[in-house]
Amino acid sequence: MSTPYFERVAIFGVGLIGGSLALELRAAQICTTIVGYDSNAENLAQAVELGIVDDAATAPEDAVRGASLVILATPPATIFDVATSLAPYLEEGAIVTDVGSVKTPIVEPLTRALAPKVRFVGGHPVAGTEKSGAAAAMRDLFRGRKCILTPVTTTDPDALQAVRAIWSRIGAHVVVLSPTVHDTVCAAISHLPHVTAYALTAAIADAAEKMPEIYGLGAGGFNDTTRIASSSPQMWRDIFLLNRDAVLDAVERMESRLAELRQLIDRADSAGLEKFFAGMRDVRQRVLKGQSS
Amino acid sequence: MSTPYFERVAIFGVGLIGGSLALELRAAQICTTIVGYDSNAENLAQAVELGIVDDAATAPEDAVRGASLVILATPPATIFDVATSLAPYLEEGAIVTDVGSVKTPIVEPLTRALAPKVRFVGGHPVAGTEKSGAAAAMRDLFRGRKCILTPVTTTDPDALQAVRAIWSRIGAHVVVLSPTVHDTVCAAISHLPHVTAYALTAAIADAAEKMPEIYGLGAGGFNDTTRIASSSPQMWRDIFLLNRDAVLDAVERMESRLAELRQLIDRADSAGLEKFFAGMRDVRQRVLKGQSS
Repeated sequence: MSTPYFERVAIFGVGLIGGSLALELRAAQICTTIVGYDSNAENLAQAVELGIVDDAATAPEDAVRGASLVILATPPATIFDVATSLAPYLEEGAIVTDVGSVKTPIVEPLTRALAPKVRFVGGHPVAGTEKSGAAAAMRDLFRGRKCILTPVTTTDPDALQAVRAIWSRIGAHVVVLSPTVHDTVCAAISHLPHVTAYALTAAIADAAEKMPEIYGLGAGGFNDTTRIASSSPQMWRDIFLLNRDAVLDAVERMESRLAELRQLIDRADSAGLEKFFAGMRDVRQRVLKGQSS
Repeated sequence: MSTPYFERVAIFGVGLIGGSLALELRAAQICTTIVGYDSNAENLAQAVELGIVDDAATAPEDAVRGASLVILATPPATIFDVATSLAPYLEEGAIVTDVGSVKTPIVEPLTRALAPKVRFVGGHPVAGTEKSGAAAAMRDLFRGRKCILTPVTTTDPDALQAVRAIWSRIGAHVVVLSPTVHDTVCAAISHLPHVTAYALTAAIADAAEKMPEIYGLGAGGFNDTTRIASSSPQMWRDIFLLNRDAVLDAVERMESRLAELRQLIDRADSAGLEKFFAGMRDVRQRVLKGQSS
């Protein structure tokens, strides 16, 4: 599969994901020039300073002029509006793709809104850290990680093939899912862990109010289970609301399993607890690697 | 504070914690000989092979003969029985300490059962990984970590001082709490994260039953929030039951915060979600470091 070449690439939102992608596109020699735009001028200036983008556009429409590839890496709640406001300025035949972590509200509507002039392909690299901003951008963020592409019936096959080739070239494993399946999968493996980490941190904060001895005693288990509660509050608020139904289903599953576990502990049901915990290691292995340990 | 010296140290349970402690005691030159005992003969043989202990005792009473320091690092549910069955064989004036993660059911009863012949000091190094067994033992597991000592009114002050000196010498920060406060603190910062990780993994397994596309797509957030669900099922079953009341309180707090978050998402309460998430990063910092970021 040959990787396409782009004279000029525009990236909207030069944060952790957009910035890291820019670093990879340059390293893979997929393009000549990368122009960035970011509503946060300070972040954009930093992206130029760090050599993440070649040029900073002062207006969104300047960024896309002449760009044959446009990457939307702004917060997911803004992607549809950013893209439709750019529509008049996009180059004929350009490929537009995104990295948003919710796909149903974006892919079908945006594909329709931009066609036939411009070809949209929905994408979501399953990678990230709790950090954000251009300063957090890094090489190899996507290497060995999955990137989910979410075509719909009206997706242009050549554009899909080009976006797939780009992600493969920078080391990601491409998986193709429908937007609906994507959103259900991500509700379970990503959005639910975030809801849980926020609730857990809040519950521990409640306990610490009554018992300040807690402060300073958190160790590895606390650190790992709550790490993602340090993620951007605005971004996660938006993701939970954009994917509301699937997230609510996932949270209900979690509430039911937590109540079951509380009841087993309450009844001191030793055998029941062992049965509950059995196979957990294997489930984790399968969710992480796709196969049993 | 001068560190005491022990001719012969006996360690019961040469797993992750007992084995790592043996490595540190030797490196710090706190003792001449370390003898290990483990009910798992294979694990004990491995501990000898890896040079973690000098000798393997074939019977528990052989391990403690001549030992002026006895460390109980068996699973918490067994510590009281192991110690009381050893009582007739312990050396007069020996110090006995443990590393169990629940203290109320151990410290007061064991201090009373062993006195006046032997001096018991309850301890709990707040460190560990999801791994277990002698093969998982490592240097520096306790360095920079907290070790909680839990004296009661009948604890011998010299023995407490000696145990404190040992932990300080191998790089741990000693914190003194009563057994009850210890168990409430650990219910919140350690036992609740474990309950949560188990429930979360189970909820994701439920989702994967209906949607096998989930397998193989777990990334960093999933990995970190569920890592400790790979911990020993038997040990955690026992910890939850040994510390049942405090764990149930903590789980109820978690259920209430999770329900609150579900309701905010259900009502699409954007401002409420932001308010819920605000300050999470700071709470994490305080729980980990004892101070605000």
